[in-house]
Amino acid sequence: MSKWTTKVTKVEPNKLTLRGYPIDELIGHLPFSSTAFLAIAGRLPEEKEGKLFDAIITSSVDHGVTPPSCQVARTMASTGVPLVQAVAGGIGTISDYHGGAIENAMKQFLTVPEDPDKQKESATEFVTAARDAKRVLFGFGHRYHNDDPRTRRLLVLAKELGFHGKYVDYALAMADALSENLGRRMPINVDGAVGAILCEMDFPTAVGNLIFALARVPGLIAHVMEERTNEKRMRRIVITDAEYDGEMGKHL
Amino acid sequence: MSKWTTKVTKVEPNKLTLRGYPIDELIGHLPFSSTAFLAIAGRLPEEKEGKLFDAIITSSVDHGVTPPSCQVARTMASTGVPLVQAVAGGIGTISDYHGGAIENAMKQFLTVPEDPDKQKESATEFVTAARDAKRVLFGFGHRYHNDDPRTRRLLVLAKELGFHGKYVDYALAMADALSENLGRRMPINVDGAVGAILCEMDFPTAVGNLIFALARVPGLIAHVMEERTNEKRMRRIVITDAEYDGEMGKHL
Amino acid sequence: MSKWTTKVTKVEPNKLTLRGYPIDELIGHLPFSSTAFLAIAGRLPEEKEGKLFDAIITSSVDHGVTPPSCQVARTMASTGVPLVQAVAGGIGTISDYHGGAIENAMKQFLTVPEDPDKQKESATEFVTAARDAKRVLFGFGHRYHNDDPRTRRLLVLAKELGFHGKYVDYALAMADALSENLGRRMPINVDGAVGAILCEMDFPTAVGNLIFALARVPGLIAHVMEERTNEKRMRRIVITDAEYDGEMGKHL
Amino acid sequence: MSKWTTKVTKVEPNKLTLRGYPIDELIGHLPFSSTAFLAIAGRLPEEKEGKLFDAIITSSVDHGVTPPSCQVARTMASTGVPLVQAVAGGIGTISDYHGGAIENAMKQFLTVPEDPDKQKESATEFVTAARDAKRVLFGFGHRYHNDDPRTRRLLVLAKELGFHGKYVDYALAMADALSENLGRRMPINVDGAVGAILCEMDFPTAVGNLIFALARVPGLIAHVMEERTNEKRMRRIVITDAEYDGEMGKHL
Repeated sequence: MSKWTTKVTKVEPNKLTLRGYPIDELIGHLPFSSTAFLAIAGRLPEEKEGKLFDAIITSSVDHGVTPPSCQVARTMASTGVPLVQAVAGGIGTISDYHGGAIENAMKQFLTVPEDPDKQKESATEFVTAARDAKRVLFGFGHRYHNDDPRTRRLLVLAKELGFHGKYVDYALAMADALSENLGRRMPINVDGAVGAILCEMDFPTAVGNLIFALARVPGLIAHVMEERTNEKRMRRIVITDAEYDGEMGKHL
Repeated sequence: MSKWTTKVTKVEPNKLTLRGYPIDELIGHLPFSSTAFLAIAGRLPEEKEGKLFDAIITSSVDHGVTPPSCQVARTMASTGVPLVQAVAGGIGTISDYHGGAIENAMKQFLTVPEDPDKQKESATEFVTAARDAKRVLFGFGHRYHNDDPRTRRLLVLAKELGFHGKYVDYALAMADALSENLGRRMPINVDGAVGAILCEMDFPTAVGNLIFALARVPGLIAHVMEERTNEKRMRRIVITDAEYDGEMGKHL
Repeated sequence: MSKWTTKVTKVEPNKLTLRGYPIDELIGHLPFSSTAFLAIAGRLPEEKEGKLFDAIITSSVDHGVTPPSCQVARTMASTGVPLVQAVAGGIGTISDYHGGAIENAMKQFLTVPEDPDKQKESATEFVTAARDAKRVLFGFGHRYHNDDPRTRRLLVLAKELGFHGKYVDYALAMADALSENLGRRMPINVDGAVGAILCEMDFPTAVGNLIFALARVPGLIAHVMEERTNEKRMRRIVITDAEYDGEMGKHL
Repeated sequence: MSKWTTKVTKVEPNKLTLRGYPIDELIGHLPFSSTAFLAIAGRLPEEKEGKLFDAIITSSVDHGVTPPSCQVARTMASTGVPLVQAVAGGIGTISDYHGGAIENAMKQFLTVPEDPDKQKESATEFVTAARDAKRVLFGFGHRYHNDDPRTRRLLVLAKELGFHGKYVDYALAMADALSENLGRRMPINVDGAVGAILCEMDFPTAVGNLIFALARVPGLIAHVMEERTNEKRMRRIVITDAEYDGEMGKHL
């Protein structure tokens, strides 16, 4: 049987090395989100990059009871499935149409021309061609939010931390072109902002859904624990009947 | 249809509130690991608590290609399953015997008597009773590591950050009693250290596997991407034939 | 590395043997349901046993859009998850409270005393003790059906085919005792009938949910295909808004 | 909230109707495999069609411990995952490269020209074009079997039962063309035979993996039960170390 190789983690007795770094040196020194970046990208993030990556996954941590991933995780928790398997079910619900906008947005933004002078024109052409062919454009608008505070915050941070480059510019140019084409404002949504920033960090498009999955795990954990603790088993879960009755008005 | 309630996230147009905090105020201000703590525990961690929680999940980020969760995730990636579903398969492999030691260790440590003078005696009795009845004790020893650097690092951090309390003491007393009973050193392993610290933070036992699952997601992402990128589809994956050929000797 | 063994299937070049039988001799000669029995039980069913096993799995083939397994499978199909993974999600939703009544009913029925003269009394005692301790009894009553035609049909078939033995008797005696205790008729439901018959066939209790899972796969396949074909992606699936508009009044 | 519709199963109190047929009329009268056909295709199979569909799923019931679906299911069973969830993990491993050959073979065979005189030529052109472009052809050859008895048996049955039509002819013509192109015999494999017959029955290509999943469930059940019953938890499962030690030489 021939050997095969891995570059992720070396396991030796009393020695664990992630991407070349002893894990015990990371513990307490490198934030978990940067350790995740290291594991996924294969390299340590620069400090500002690590902060922005942390911001990205924080922005997608939860979206309440309505996303399909949450419905699946709660439904499984409700039938008595172990909570880890229920969370896994939720993660397994992320796909082309749930989370997938990040990857599709990245693919769009990666078509940005090298020449800065041609970007605006190219964005307009891209949008017009998509509209004419009735192709969906990804990363713009949202069924609940037309001025999503997460998006605004991410774009501000990207600028502050030095990651507002050609991909973010191109995304903004596409949003302008789309708004003009539609005759109403159609801003970048959180998937679009995340996608553009992941492009700035040189992540491959295939990572979009995976990073979204990582981000959403804490939310799914909260939901399956709440379901298991508070609700009757095998209840009929009607999402539209849910009301928030938790705390409000808190600030850091 | 009657209403039901949730205390996790309130979703309003252009306003998202996690456990009472606007998510856009968390982005870039609260580390992702602390946001995860907030989502799961329902309260903001104290600063030192947040650091220790980050350390805990960092310590379990990956353990190479041998854990069953990694085997499952890579096998699924190898057949062409979308990578998110492959990661979900890996998460769904965490159970009583893979990750489960954390929860079982927590249950043991929660039997600590209130009276500090009785803890050592109680630990010895607990261990003796378990050994006599041939019951497994959880959180001690490891098939690869007898002096796991992650464990040492976590216990040092717990002391530094003020979370070395009765549960950690009790776990150490159990390790001493077990070592004496066996006639050879049987230290706390990483599951035991994580379990004792989660007890110090007042987490319920049911959270053990869920936090382990969160911790392991970045590792699983790295593995499924490596499998998809580097290996032939439907290959026979023999774990014992894997060799690490990545970088070594790197430091923060 | 030491050898390990399997008794399920031997694979040799151009020769496949399931539980000792060449698979090509089974194809077209042994019904799929009996091949499934052979795979699971490790022995060929007797002819009448095979017919009854076929009847059992046919009885659980689908229960419309409301079961949690169907909700999960449709929700996953709706987000773009490949249909096989959506079916897997549905299967993974079967658990203690969804399907689990079969296994729990089997455990009850296996307490039947050997002496036929003591069965009725034992059933009454079992039911009374459970009622007094507010323990749930499994396999009786149904949220939709109080005279389930599937149950009736299965019990008639069990008698015809020679599998109405002590377990079915005991289940009926329990239903009588429970009805008397409650002061209203509480018949065996389909899970109870399936459980009692699986006991008659000497299946272990652990097989209950697995056989239910096998039975439900065709139904889940039908639902995920319908969802993918007819519905918009990422729609809000409210189960209570579903209406049947298929054919009616057909007979073999 | 607007209504939506389903044509699978109507559930009324004490009345269950699958595709228009009362389920209690199917139990014991229609074989499970034909009930599965009814659920999936939305119509009752003709008698000969039902027999052939039964043969198809019987042919794929198990392939020993080596398929990735079995590895995943056994690995999950080994960590303590409930057996239903382990089977679900196995099902969720079926994808483009595991089982997927059926769907891809169907797509090939659906290109058969209407005119019988042109089929042989078209098959040769199809194969030549694929070989020249280094595109994979699906449904031919097998890593273990070069004269698979399941394939032979299925093709004989298809002829006997009146389902050897243009798709099977086209598949055979492709196998001949491929063998000639390669200079060595490259027969239809079991996926190719199943695919061609499913085309004869007018199933859509999307059903290929789903029917394969249904077929494989009994095998996966047998494996997870064997793993749970006979093996130590968290063992290192090396597939190449498995030996068959079950019965042999049995016949119907």
